[in-house]
Amino acid sequence: MAAERTRVRRHPERGHYDRETVDAILDDGFLCHLGFVVDEQPYVIPTLHARLGDVLYLHGSPASRMLKELHKGVPVCVTVTHLDGIVLAKSVFNHSVNYRSAVVLGRARRVEGDEKLAALEAIVEHIAPGRWHEARQPSEKELKTTEVVALSLDECSAKVRNGPPIDSPEDRDADVRSGVIPLSILRGTLE
Amino acid sequence: MAAERTRVRRHPERGHYDRETVDAILDDGFLCHLGFVVDEQPYVIPTLHARLGDVLYLHGSPASRMLKELHKGVPVCVTVTHLDGIVLAKSVFNHSVNYRSAVVLGRARRVEGDEKLAALEAIVEHIAPGRWHEARQPSEKELKTTEVVALSLDECSAKVRNGPPIDSPEDRDADVRSGVIPLSILRGTLE
Repeated sequence: MAAERTRVRRHPERGHYDRETVDAILDDGFLCHLGFVVDEQPYVIPTLHARLGDVLYLHGSPASRMLKELHKGVPVCVTVTHLDGIVLAKSVFNHSVNYRSAVVLGRARRVEGDEKLAALEAIVEHIAPGRWHEARQPSEKELKTTEVVALSLDECSAKVRNGPPIDSPEDRDADVRSGVIPLSILRGTLE
Repeated sequence: MAAERTRVRRHPERGHYDRETVDAILDDGFLCHLGFVVDEQPYVIPTLHARLGDVLYLHGSPASRMLKELHKGVPVCVTVTHLDGIVLAKSVFNHSVNYRSAVVLGRARRVEGDEKLAALEAIVEHIAPGRWHEARQPSEKELKTTEVVALSLDECSAKVRNGPPIDSPEDRDADVRSGVIPLSILRGTLE
């Protein structure tokens, strides 16, 4: 897991390579950013994901550039990030943010049949628990217009910063308010 | 602006190419995902940004792989995404999310001198308004250990989905609760 390509170089103390940490970050949100390359230009596209065991699933339209590229088996990177707080230090330089991010590298494979249906259920349930059975199930025609790809979690890592600001020794007694402003996602009620 | 590389292909009605829309998305958050390529492998790294006029600024450590790559003038992609709601439709297939995303393509340039200081102020003020003057200013030594790069907004686009679910005609009278669960970021109080 701690492969060279996913090793955390800056602030190595923030690097985590255990699947428990990576999985918790992947599972604690449904928005990911997918990176792929076309003609040497990287593209970073927001999309939705769900994890089942050792596999991360993404879905999309067969007509999308994203899916067309993924089907070619090109190298991709999927990153999931949660912002947990704004870290106010006594100096501008020591300001930071608390966050958790997970990075997965690999090549996607096309998913079909029962695995495709299980992946779509996982994605819907990840975004809106209970909805797979509450709403109408997909028809054959709808299933044909949705593609699912899978990315194995063989090569992944996490980076986490948490806790209070770390002030420079010279600033410790300065009369500047400091601490952490927590950030979280607020889910409203159905409108 | 509506260059071929940033044209929204899927759901073209969600594409926006005016700077007002793009700028509002870039300004309404400080977390971006930066994509770059090393040895044909894309990497997507969460980082912080701020916009000043026609330029997007990112910062980091001179020792980071991200900054080392950016200094080479390689092609990059910066994406900023806001999740605004979970869209519950009457069928599983029509479920969606409301979101706003902006994508910027280009090559970064290294920033120094007065522009660097202005960019760092913009980044700090973007994350925590008022802190640039409230906290201790950066020392010469601190400035040397922070690098800033700039990306022009010449090639960018936005994609926005908002509004209620769009149900298939066959589902309109189905007895399934539907609508939008709004999502927002909650800022707590300083701890």
